[in-house]
Amino acid sequence: MKKYNVGILGASGAVGREMIKVLEERNFPIETLKLFASERSVGKKVEFCGKELTIELADYGAWAGLDFVLGAASNAVAKQFADDIVKSGAVFIDNSSAFRMDPDIPLVVPEINAEDARNNKKGIIANPNCSTIITLVAVNAINKLSKIKGIVASTYQATSGAGAAGPVELDEQMRAIINGADITPSVFQYQIAENLIPQIGSFLDNGYTTEEMKMQNEGRKILHNPDLKVTCTCVRVPVVRSHSISATVVTERKLTVDEVKAAIAACEGCKLYDDVENKIYPMPLVTSDQDLVFVGRIREDIVHDNAITLWCCGDQVRKGAATNAIQIAEALIEK
Amino acid sequence: MKKYNVGILGASGAVGREMIKVLEERNFPIETLKLFASERSVGKKVEFCGKELTIELADYGAWAGLDFVLGAASNAVAKQFADDIVKSGAVFIDNSSAFRMDPDIPLVVPEINAEDARNNKKGIIANPNCSTIITLVAVNAINKLSKIKGIVASTYQATSGAGAAGPVELDEQMRAIINGADITPSVFQYQIAENLIPQIGSFLDNGYTTEEMKMQNEGRKILHNPDLKVTCTCVRVPVVRSHSISATVVTERKLTVDEVKAAIAACEGCKLYDDVENKIYPMPLVTSDQDLVFVGRIREDIVHDNAITLWCCGDQVRKGAATNAIQIAEALIEK
Repeated sequence: MKKYNVGILGASGAVGREMIKVLEERNFPIETLKLFASERSVGKKVEFCGKELTIELADYGAWAGLDFVLGAASNAVAKQFADDIVKSGAVFIDNSSAFRMDPDIPLVVPEINAEDARNNKKGIIANPNCSTIITLVAVNAINKLSKIKGIVASTYQATSGAGAAGPVELDEQMRAIINGADITPSVFQYQIAENLIPQIGSFLDNGYTTEEMKMQNEGRKILHNPDLKVTCTCVRVPVVRSHSISATVVTERKLTVDEVKAAIAACEGCKLYDDVENKIYPMPLVTSDQDLVFVGRIREDIVHDNAITLWCCGDQVRKGAATNAIQIAEALIEK
Repeated sequence: MKKYNVGILGASGAVGREMIKVLEERNFPIETLKLFASERSVGKKVEFCGKELTIELADYGAWAGLDFVLGAASNAVAKQFADDIVKSGAVFIDNSSAFRMDPDIPLVVPEINAEDARNNKKGIIANPNCSTIITLVAVNAINKLSKIKGIVASTYQATSGAGAAGPVELDEQMRAIINGADITPSVFQYQIAENLIPQIGSFLDNGYTTEEMKMQNEGRKILHNPDLKVTCTCVRVPVVRSHSISATVVTERKLTVDEVKAAIAACEGCKLYDDVENKIYPMPLVTSDQDLVFVGRIREDIVHDNAITLWCCGDQVRKGAATNAIQIAEALIEK
């Protein structure tokens, strides 16, 4: 089997570190793994497959000889190095939102549109937003039964969605509450422990946040459905890891709960987790640190004639980011 | 001003204790306050308006001379004593769900249908479910602008909705997480600290929980709208107090965001709390321990032609239970 030279840009962040772990777990055929980050992290040691790797400076020319660069950095850093990465001959699979809506750059959830990844004329493939990936993997089976016209989604997003500093802030605030100490938020807009913050991203003129509009905008591109309508409300919750989404999915045809359950059970990337009599439904604690999107609470919607309401959870650092990027690379390699 | 003799049935629970506090805060015209609970709490002392009251046994005949009995006990206890309370001449304002759907017993949110409270032929008035009260107060102004046809709601319900033991369990579990100790849930089905539980109440044949169906069933009765359709997903979140609801409200006529905001700002029981540029939106920490329902994130829905999407928070121990019951009593007294 051919082996590949892989680089990770932003290797010291939450997603970058998870990429290292997932590459090892999935036995990605690696010849060499190179880790890149900003000055601050250069020289740090990271273990990969029993070997110690050293983080190098992310800089022009650093990508020579690589087949893939997995991007786990900011939009600015992704934009800064994208051309240089592509010119060096590597395919850049980027987790930032910098290139997601570029019509010439595929936006890919491999279970849904892996074929788009193979049509990357610019050498760049974008990894979608975390809540978008989790929701779309959950509803992909429904979309195959009957085209989805609209989704009304409310998210319950974990602190790790804000990077490694998110769960640290939650932990610190929990300690402060227990010790009666003062709380000064820094990662989140307000205290997140024992609270909810209905703002992720910045506000647009239509009253939605940038994060909220991603599910519609990215969903249209991934599902090849330019008419898809999504109303999304994104809320940060005091959870460490795994995003949850309450979704009402409006379809063209009326579906039965049984056919939806059967389709989800058979769908790649999903786990039907729906046995309410035995209190089996997705929860963040159950779905963290693994790659499947758990789907449960599947029932006929009451407001709409043709809609299914469900609840899904998935680990947004893994399937919502690191794993999805590596699955894109897997879709491109010789098997 | 006439003064009234008031009893609280279930005075030692979370809602009962809050009723004592709210009666004092609102200067309810009280001649005598009597507190009743089960054997376990008899003899306990509680302060009210600078005086020490002693909890008495809830028993047949205990209500003699009372004008109002506020019920803050279980369905079973409410059913056990309702007839006896009414026969003694008191009006029974009950927070349990025992009588809510009885067609001869009014179900009242005073800002919406106070007139129903005055038509209590059986001497019993029911206090609605907490999430239902908060959501309906938030959307009441919208319903006056254009009849509501449907609501798609996802709740984020605080631990205090499970009674006084709920926040205690959250606190204990937060300590256990920080100390690396084991967690054994007892109040909730699963660990609630750093987790979400998409089950409140028990499951019905249609896949919804008893709690989820309350918003439609009780909403129809309160709004005098038998055709109202509500899809609700109820989720327990690791918050101490204040329930939050993400709601898409489908109306007969298309409403503008500006007219909705103006109507909510002018609506009794609501506080328009919607200035996203300045990060002003309802949050549990901001809305706890007060009586208004805060409404924000008001925007045009994307999926439906005629719908408004919003986010609201309210203290479910107060407006969702204790305060609403006392407001019902206020609607019945001579002023």
